[in-house]
Amino acid sequence: MFCSSVSKSISFAANLKNINMSLVVVGSMAFDAIETPFGKSDKIIGGAGTFIAWCASNFTAVKQISVVGGDFPQSELDLLTTRNVDLEGVQIKKDEKTFFWSGKYHMDMNTRDTLVTELNVLENFQPVVPDSYQDCEFLMLGNLVPAVQSSVIDQLRTRPKLIVMDTMNFWMEIAMDDLKKTISMVDVLMVNDSEARQLSGDYSLVRAAQKISAMGPKYVIIKKGEHGALLFHDNKIFSAPALPLEEVFDPTGAGDTFAGGFIAHLAKTRDISFENMKTAIIVGSAMASFCVEKFGTERLRGLTNEEIKDRIHQFVQLSSFDINLI
Amino acid sequence: MFCSSVSKSISFAANLKNINMSLVVVGSMAFDAIETPFGKSDKIIGGAGTFIAWCASNFTAVKQISVVGGDFPQSELDLLTTRNVDLEGVQIKKDEKTFFWSGKYHMDMNTRDTLVTELNVLENFQPVVPDSYQDCEFLMLGNLVPAVQSSVIDQLRTRPKLIVMDTMNFWMEIAMDDLKKTISMVDVLMVNDSEARQLSGDYSLVRAAQKISAMGPKYVIIKKGEHGALLFHDNKIFSAPALPLEEVFDPTGAGDTFAGGFIAHLAKTRDISFENMKTAIIVGSAMASFCVEKFGTERLRGLTNEEIKDRIHQFVQLSSFDINLI
Repeated sequence: MFCSSVSKSISFAANLKNINMSLVVVGSMAFDAIETPFGKSDKIIGGAGTFIAWCASNFTAVKQISVVGGDFPQSELDLLTTRNVDLEGVQIKKDEKTFFWSGKYHMDMNTRDTLVTELNVLENFQPVVPDSYQDCEFLMLGNLVPAVQSSVIDQLRTRPKLIVMDTMNFWMEIAMDDLKKTISMVDVLMVNDSEARQLSGDYSLVRAAQKISAMGPKYVIIKKGEHGALLFHDNKIFSAPALPLEEVFDPTGAGDTFAGGFIAHLAKTRDISFENMKTAIIVGSAMASFCVEKFGTERLRGLTNEEIKDRIHQFVQLSSFDINLI
Repeated sequence: MFCSSVSKSISFAANLKNINMSLVVVGSMAFDAIETPFGKSDKIIGGAGTFIAWCASNFTAVKQISVVGGDFPQSELDLLTTRNVDLEGVQIKKDEKTFFWSGKYHMDMNTRDTLVTELNVLENFQPVVPDSYQDCEFLMLGNLVPAVQSSVIDQLRTRPKLIVMDTMNFWMEIAMDDLKKTISMVDVLMVNDSEARQLSGDYSLVRAAQKISAMGPKYVIIKKGEHGALLFHDNKIFSAPALPLEEVFDPTGAGDTFAGGFIAHLAKTRDISFENMKTAIIVGSAMASFCVEKFGTERLRGLTNEEIKDRIHQFVQLSSFDINLI
């Protein structure tokens, strides 16, 4: 017999005051210019850290570590502050420019060409962890230079309860040694399917996850875009669906948003069991499904708790089935 | 709150005598020669109808419609008979040769080249529905010439309770009019993702399913190989996972086996609700996950009920999660 026991709860920002503020997020805050088959954005707000913060702040408070230039709008920072995103760890380099990325998606929306990368303030970014961020229980390392990611871990006097790391193929090509060192320090690594294959040198995702786990992370999440995500731990596997969408308008930030929903659910519930990670992946997937509906962070900005609950409920309906083995 | 109600049961061949024998299967019975990155088979037993029969006969009796040449081993036919596969509708053309297909899979196992196609007895196949097959409640049209599929429907004096159709891109290229006519006559169409896009002319699988449904089938199943399968009906969607495997040894027949498990579960339970179709997709997926473990039908031949139950249980564990929306 299969009957899901009910033990987890998803509550929302209204309860923020009651929540242990122990989630630290490291990630870029940037400008993006995006072209998709459906249109072209202006220079808009982007960056892994930005997407994670916009997403995670629906569930829990966030302590942000990042760097921006003098051209980054103060109004954007103020908006995050009103959402309980602590910006003490965000350096503002008045005389420099914010990181800028421009990319163009192909028709299938799974592949893209980078048109412009201007590192600007990211070039010499040395993160500094404020004292008030010490003793954080949950650390989300958004996709960033691996040495910058590990320097944040090194600065924490007490190891967080859970360290989750996102990364991308780019670092495998130019900084594999640093990347492997950082990977060896974390509990959960999230990569997409082609990155898992590249990192492990194995085509089979099952074996790729085993090989990545042998590098350090006890939990490996493989993101498969429109095909959902897989969570591997010991010999256990969880397969989460993606919501089939009529249109993916702009995939930028979907992976970051997924990461934000995943760690925010864990931080809020303070439960890092495999069972709760499954739930966290559904929360991350639901949040990512919003992200792709509009350019950049636009869709994440107007989200209501009701919409989030409805979307999570859609995931339940999407993947639940009844079965009785006799 | 999400808690799966328990209302369906999976029982097995041991109960065959109690089961209403109302499943008719139409499909090729053939010889295959297969090359994969892992090895090369001899000329072995294959064909959509063969895979469907080997799979479905684990759950219910089967009435088979097909054609073979004088070179098809009698021992193979006898084996199917012992499994409650009725062969009255299988024509044996003593002086002709059985359909032969040879193919070579690429490294990703999702694409293949056809090396040889010898239609032989299939070239002028005119299926004849025996009297004893009339009043069948469930009809499975395995991948075959669309005009042959529809001629079986035409010969049935009473329309079956459910008609399920499998097809492939080949017929879209050489017999689109016949294909659309047959599609308009069925309840459930199953195709893979690229075929759904080709048939509908739409890249989005959600819109592709809507367009295919407008052609006739109230239910559309899109098979995504290692990424599972989607079931569409009205505005409802079910996403079934695939079992992540270390190795796909030979994908030949996986789609046919999926079809066999799907319709056999429905025929056995005689319940064609959307909820039970979800369960049927899990049964089909579990059976297909066995099929790819060895060449051809080999893995399906030795299956025990215990193995099938265990595999279905793996699917439950793979995709279940706990969530509570408050």
